[in-house]
Amino acid sequence: MASLAKPSSADGSHPSLLQHYCAVRNATELLCQPLTSEDQVVQSMADVSPTKWHLAHTSWFFERIILREFVSEYRPLNEKYDFLFNSYYYTIGQMQARPRRGLLSRPTVDDILAYRTHVDRAMQDLLDSGPENEEITFRTTLGLNHEQQHQELILTDIKHVLSQNPLAPAMLSKPLEPTPDPGPMNYENHDGGILELGFPGDGFCFDNELPRHRCFVNPYQLASRPVSNREYKEFISDGGYTKSDLWLSDGWSIVCKEKISRPLYWSPGLAAEFTLSGLTALDENAPVCHLSFYEADAFARWAGARLPTEAEWETVAVQYPVDGNFVSTGRLHPGGTVAETNTGQPGENPARIFGDVWEWTSSSYAPYPGFQPLAGSLGEYNGKFMCSQMVLRGGSCATPPGHVRPSYRNFFYPHQQWQFSGIRLARDV
Amino acid sequence: MASLAKPSSADGSHPSLLQHYCAVRNATELLCQPLTSEDQVVQSMADVSPTKWHLAHTSWFFERIILREFVSEYRPLNEKYDFLFNSYYYTIGQMQARPRRGLLSRPTVDDILAYRTHVDRAMQDLLDSGPENEEITFRTTLGLNHEQQHQELILTDIKHVLSQNPLAPAMLSKPLEPTPDPGPMNYENHDGGILELGFPGDGFCFDNELPRHRCFVNPYQLASRPVSNREYKEFISDGGYTKSDLWLSDGWSIVCKEKISRPLYWSPGLAAEFTLSGLTALDENAPVCHLSFYEADAFARWAGARLPTEAEWETVAVQYPVDGNFVSTGRLHPGGTVAETNTGQPGENPARIFGDVWEWTSSSYAPYPGFQPLAGSLGEYNGKFMCSQMVLRGGSCATPPGHVRPSYRNFFYPHQQWQFSGIRLARDV
Amino acid sequence: MASLAKPSSADGSHPSLLQHYCAVRNATELLCQPLTSEDQVVQSMADVSPTKWHLAHTSWFFERIILREFVSEYRPLNEKYDFLFNSYYYTIGQMQARPRRGLLSRPTVDDILAYRTHVDRAMQDLLDSGPENEEITFRTTLGLNHEQQHQELILTDIKHVLSQNPLAPAMLSKPLEPTPDPGPMNYENHDGGILELGFPGDGFCFDNELPRHRCFVNPYQLASRPVSNREYKEFISDGGYTKSDLWLSDGWSIVCKEKISRPLYWSPGLAAEFTLSGLTALDENAPVCHLSFYEADAFARWAGARLPTEAEWETVAVQYPVDGNFVSTGRLHPGGTVAETNTGQPGENPARIFGDVWEWTSSSYAPYPGFQPLAGSLGEYNGKFMCSQMVLRGGSCATPPGHVRPSYRNFFYPHQQWQFSGIRLARDV
Amino acid sequence: MASLAKPSSADGSHPSLLQHYCAVRNATELLCQPLTSEDQVVQSMADVSPTKWHLAHTSWFFERIILREFVSEYRPLNEKYDFLFNSYYYTIGQMQARPRRGLLSRPTVDDILAYRTHVDRAMQDLLDSGPENEEITFRTTLGLNHEQQHQELILTDIKHVLSQNPLAPAMLSKPLEPTPDPGPMNYENHDGGILELGFPGDGFCFDNELPRHRCFVNPYQLASRPVSNREYKEFISDGGYTKSDLWLSDGWSIVCKEKISRPLYWSPGLAAEFTLSGLTALDENAPVCHLSFYEADAFARWAGARLPTEAEWETVAVQYPVDGNFVSTGRLHPGGTVAETNTGQPGENPARIFGDVWEWTSSSYAPYPGFQPLAGSLGEYNGKFMCSQMVLRGGSCATPPGHVRPSYRNFFYPHQQWQFSGIRLARDV
Repeated sequence: MASLAKPSSADGSHPSLLQHYCAVRNATELLCQPLTSEDQVVQSMADVSPTKWHLAHTSWFFERIILREFVSEYRPLNEKYDFLFNSYYYTIGQMQARPRRGLLSRPTVDDILAYRTHVDRAMQDLLDSGPENEEITFRTTLGLNHEQQHQELILTDIKHVLSQNPLAPAMLSKPLEPTPDPGPMNYENHDGGILELGFPGDGFCFDNELPRHRCFVNPYQLASRPVSNREYKEFISDGGYTKSDLWLSDGWSIVCKEKISRPLYWSPGLAAEFTLSGLTALDENAPVCHLSFYEADAFARWAGARLPTEAEWETVAVQYPVDGNFVSTGRLHPGGTVAETNTGQPGENPARIFGDVWEWTSSSYAPYPGFQPLAGSLGEYNGKFMCSQMVLRGGSCATPPGHVRPSYRNFFYPHQQWQFSGIRLARDV
Repeated sequence: MASLAKPSSADGSHPSLLQHYCAVRNATELLCQPLTSEDQVVQSMADVSPTKWHLAHTSWFFERIILREFVSEYRPLNEKYDFLFNSYYYTIGQMQARPRRGLLSRPTVDDILAYRTHVDRAMQDLLDSGPENEEITFRTTLGLNHEQQHQELILTDIKHVLSQNPLAPAMLSKPLEPTPDPGPMNYENHDGGILELGFPGDGFCFDNELPRHRCFVNPYQLASRPVSNREYKEFISDGGYTKSDLWLSDGWSIVCKEKISRPLYWSPGLAAEFTLSGLTALDENAPVCHLSFYEADAFARWAGARLPTEAEWETVAVQYPVDGNFVSTGRLHPGGTVAETNTGQPGENPARIFGDVWEWTSSSYAPYPGFQPLAGSLGEYNGKFMCSQMVLRGGSCATPPGHVRPSYRNFFYPHQQWQFSGIRLARDV
Repeated sequence: MASLAKPSSADGSHPSLLQHYCAVRNATELLCQPLTSEDQVVQSMADVSPTKWHLAHTSWFFERIILREFVSEYRPLNEKYDFLFNSYYYTIGQMQARPRRGLLSRPTVDDILAYRTHVDRAMQDLLDSGPENEEITFRTTLGLNHEQQHQELILTDIKHVLSQNPLAPAMLSKPLEPTPDPGPMNYENHDGGILELGFPGDGFCFDNELPRHRCFVNPYQLASRPVSNREYKEFISDGGYTKSDLWLSDGWSIVCKEKISRPLYWSPGLAAEFTLSGLTALDENAPVCHLSFYEADAFARWAGARLPTEAEWETVAVQYPVDGNFVSTGRLHPGGTVAETNTGQPGENPARIFGDVWEWTSSSYAPYPGFQPLAGSLGEYNGKFMCSQMVLRGGSCATPPGHVRPSYRNFFYPHQQWQFSGIRLARDV
Repeated sequence: MASLAKPSSADGSHPSLLQHYCAVRNATELLCQPLTSEDQVVQSMADVSPTKWHLAHTSWFFERIILREFVSEYRPLNEKYDFLFNSYYYTIGQMQARPRRGLLSRPTVDDILAYRTHVDRAMQDLLDSGPENEEITFRTTLGLNHEQQHQELILTDIKHVLSQNPLAPAMLSKPLEPTPDPGPMNYENHDGGILELGFPGDGFCFDNELPRHRCFVNPYQLASRPVSNREYKEFISDGGYTKSDLWLSDGWSIVCKEKISRPLYWSPGLAAEFTLSGLTALDENAPVCHLSFYEADAFARWAGARLPTEAEWETVAVQYPVDGNFVSTGRLHPGGTVAETNTGQPGENPARIFGDVWEWTSSSYAPYPGFQPLAGSLGEYNGKFMCSQMVLRGGSCATPPGHVRPSYRNFFYPHQQWQFSGIRLARDV
């Protein structure tokens, strides 16, 4: 993913970017501190990458798209890292197959931290030197947004790794605080019409948020808050996982074949949930989480509603501050006490539209009209995934603050459950 | 699939529907006459159904949605057929698993023809008796449209079956006539704006063509004809199957894993193609066919173009008569001499927009705004497949004449190649 | 498989071999008469071949090893049959992959019967002409023994095909007669010592029965009859399929993974069994059948016994006439009334040691000391399978009479259930 | 695996067993010292277990079969370890599925070393206390032999783990010394006859080495040394991997399907080999290693020889001291300079019959006549694997000295390559 928009340069100065660089890079490492080095090796399924692979890949990204392009005297720490830590950039070269990332006991976490330092020094020198180069600034900004995406993936991936362990180890030591009653879920009317969709500003955005364009939308309603665990339990109690007519055909096949009967991390008896704080009692007030698109869609059908389209969601989201339960709360789980600015008037405003859980939309991930991927290898960032995936919006409790926007498009396959993904309902008027 | 619209009733009389019933049912059996009974048993892949299964399933459909609902004295020929010939209607009951349809040496083709006769007699009695029942008329019309869809599937499926045989047997005895030079492919400008999409009339349509609704479209260009085999060969010669940057990520994975290097039925040397008339020299003037969405999309990218959206396609298609190379030409292959009404002025009109090949669009198969599936089991016809598939438009050389419309939506998974699927290009202005 | 021993030539005359040829070839076709042509197309699992493939392959065998080697003017009916009907002779050429045999709707059964006639005429001309050629005589004898093996496979394979059909069609129209009470199972003592094993005579045998050789055997006991369905039901009632300690590790894995809980063709309630006469009440007196080696071994362990070795079995078998319930009884199922010569004194003699069911031994299929496969392509017949399979002895109700001998070695993988395979117990003294 | 024979008690004193216990347990940990903790997490295929799993499982073995049986006050460190570190003892309880052992980032290596200490303290207390208990002595001896088997597996498994890493990391820092020319391979005559096979003594042996029994063997020849890399290269050069007639059928299928063309760890150009000392030039004088049974068998066929039976091998082996290139040489690779006692007269004696490489025999792994597994859960050690595997003899460069005997039977599936497995040829006279 990468944008055509110029990077934000409110003050435009190098120091700012350098500081930002240091802050983001440092945040990644802080995130991993509660983990043992052994935790950082394991790949629990093909979708998951080991923590240390994320630590290395994000460094490789800066090395490849900036240092090796713009710094003639830069020397890679290890030429083979190019193979090991390329994710999916075929135009750059071959790569370690994704399902084999968990075979890499070496380089060790320490080796990779040294690699990070190696890259950081070169990047810091570059950012600290001479006049601004627009392309370097853009690519650095892109690299930092990329790093933030991997910060979230580090959390979703290690959660899956730890969940597969019969010991159910906790990453965080402090227990989760309960979530207050969210009150009733209401629907708010929206007019629709010819709406404008896509990134409007002049700061950074990914290429998939552009171009801004018009689309026609019928009048609709959007729910005032995400679906809660309590509500999702009702769906289960009502036989939601046993009624074929609630499900898309592909979803029903998976439910039957894999015997799915509850959200990914719920215990068989529905009383507990595996979290980054370990196995905890199910917090019925918290937003339901770790659902596939198929589950979200089936719930919506059961509830006599539907999922919103991207356009419907974005049109409402632009009216709210980008505030909420992001990774900065340290909770790393949906729910908890809601930040002031997001509470609004319960029943009137779509509270918690940012943070907590990514909200599945009914929109398949497709290019906007007139979409142009970035040039060269960076064009592989987003565009080539525009098929068979569904868009999610709004960020989650694992998203770094400041990373998402109303126009931000996340995307996953409809069967995937391991992201912090939940439901906000919509209805036709 | 099934529509909310009332069935056409130009004259509205039962006899007409009865005659239509007999004609459509008879056409199905005529289609199978060149086949041996053994041909009709084989299932060459999970996507394919044996010919005789189609013959039985279409009869079961009338039995289940009409006879067993509206004719109290009707007795099924064999109670077990309900299990054997249910396709995917979970609300009706359990079914033979799709990949196991090829295990059914019994009932034999003769048994199934007797089953057809059994159902036909009861249906004819019903349609011939007393005053019209609106629901029966609608369901009969739906059943006949359903039967026509399976007429096409009989052809696509048996083509795959025969293609898997090292003897490359021909279904048709007469050789294919060559296709005249289609002339250059031109792009025609279209204004876009707020367009109306979906079935406008009051005759029959499937539920997925409704409701008619508005959408906003930028100005665009649509190609004057489908891409030809000659043009597709240039793509291959230029390394189209070896350049990762031309492909969507999922498509590239399949190309690499399954070593795909040409359309499904082309010979390794690209000089010949398996057709229902057997292995024949590649007709370079004919529209290219049996492409996956991934191939169509990669070709478009290579050609500096893109696939049209549903809205773009339909807006143009409504301007043309629904005429072309349908199954009625007896060719059962794209190309050949073009029907009068479709030739138009080369370079000006999108000739061959109907018939020949289904044209992949860039639109994923999704519900139209306000979509409501039919009630009850018929709601399983279309709606539950609205995920992860792409829409194709326009019908093919295997489509019965009169079956498709400008608003008709066909849909398949992006990797599937075995339909008569091709490419019409579009471009931004 | 093929032997170094010279073929039997009691009278040695060509006419005799010619008559034998005609009789065996004719018997194959008679066996298939109850089947529809559609039955003969289906391949229900990779282990199974379609009936018509057997009909063609056995003809190809004569064509390839005799006609194309010894008859210069012979013209194959269709050059492509060489690819279609080669089973596993890599030294002859490439072949249709085994799991793809069920894709061959063509050649039709009629085509293949014409192929049989084509080969038969040439073979009959050859066998009817001039002085005997020793190699031709040997290869013809081998080809006829090969054909007899496929007669049995035709039955085991079509049984599996029909069993997969929810209609449970019967191949035979007459119902199965019940089996008389077999009386108690007794153990008979045998001395062991240095025994001679392998084919002793000068008639035909397969190469894997040679060379005759000595082996040392401890004193042992062999059961007087095969294990009955009644006895096997006791094993099931006693939790035989739920007690891991009764099973070999690989067997237990399969039991768990495939949820095996009874013999292949038994109904879930253990009251009925699918047979070539259709679904019939379980005949508790009949020998248990269609067991894997793992099941046979687990039963033996449960019974405080074990399976016999090849040497133990053969040493006893040579003392009995090769008589029993073979395919010639027309029953095509174990049990029924026992042929006179085989009854003996119940409790003293191992009755039914031939026919009824192949008896799993504890011997893995290995070359005898000094084993030499036949020269050339015929060396692929037996030798290359001497790994990971287990030996079965004695023939079954699907074996042509006159085909087996005391030294005859059949072999299948330990997980395979679809042969007429059962249990005779042995014990240490 | 476990034996009926009483444990050796030359002096019979507790201190001796305690000292032996400490020595063996300590040796395991020493073996792992060159590894990072991250190395010890990875499972590179289902056959492989992570190093730390071996460290824990061997401790669990003592805990389960001794401490929890005989020490009433013993408290397990963690009750869940019973699930995590049970390997395949179904009679004890459920277990972590084998292919999921690599998911266990916790317990960490440090946790597991603490677990070892916990078990060691209890075991030391037990062994140090009071009068000898025969059963405890036997089980401790069994546990130590079990631990030694896992010492070898730690090496074979970590070699596979490291080999899958594109960095090809070395476990050992010192380079491999080259192997002197082994001289010509000669065949030595042996008389055969009635031989005695199986463990003869009164020390420890596994249950699968018993009972000692007679078997009859024809005169035979056994090669004077293992096949070398140079000889195996000739096999490859001569098209060994491309000639179907050299291979068992199952072996040929794997060669084709998995595109096998050389020993497991050889480089594509055959010039280098991955070893525990990293990627090194191929040592042509060293014994060839990491072959499957299929490869060993195909090589033997190509060489006009065959693999020896267990009886042939053991009869010769008992004539030699159990000396050779074991793990104690620190080489951890076949070859190098040969220990004095083993050199003998080249061409006369089968040098290197112990150590270097496990030698595939042609014998499938089967119970000896009269075999009785140990009672209870220990009966699961060996007996249940007696199907579909082949016996290997003689120990390897990864085997602890003192662990093997002439009667020692190792066993693996015929396709497995990752053990230190090689070839010693035999011939009929």
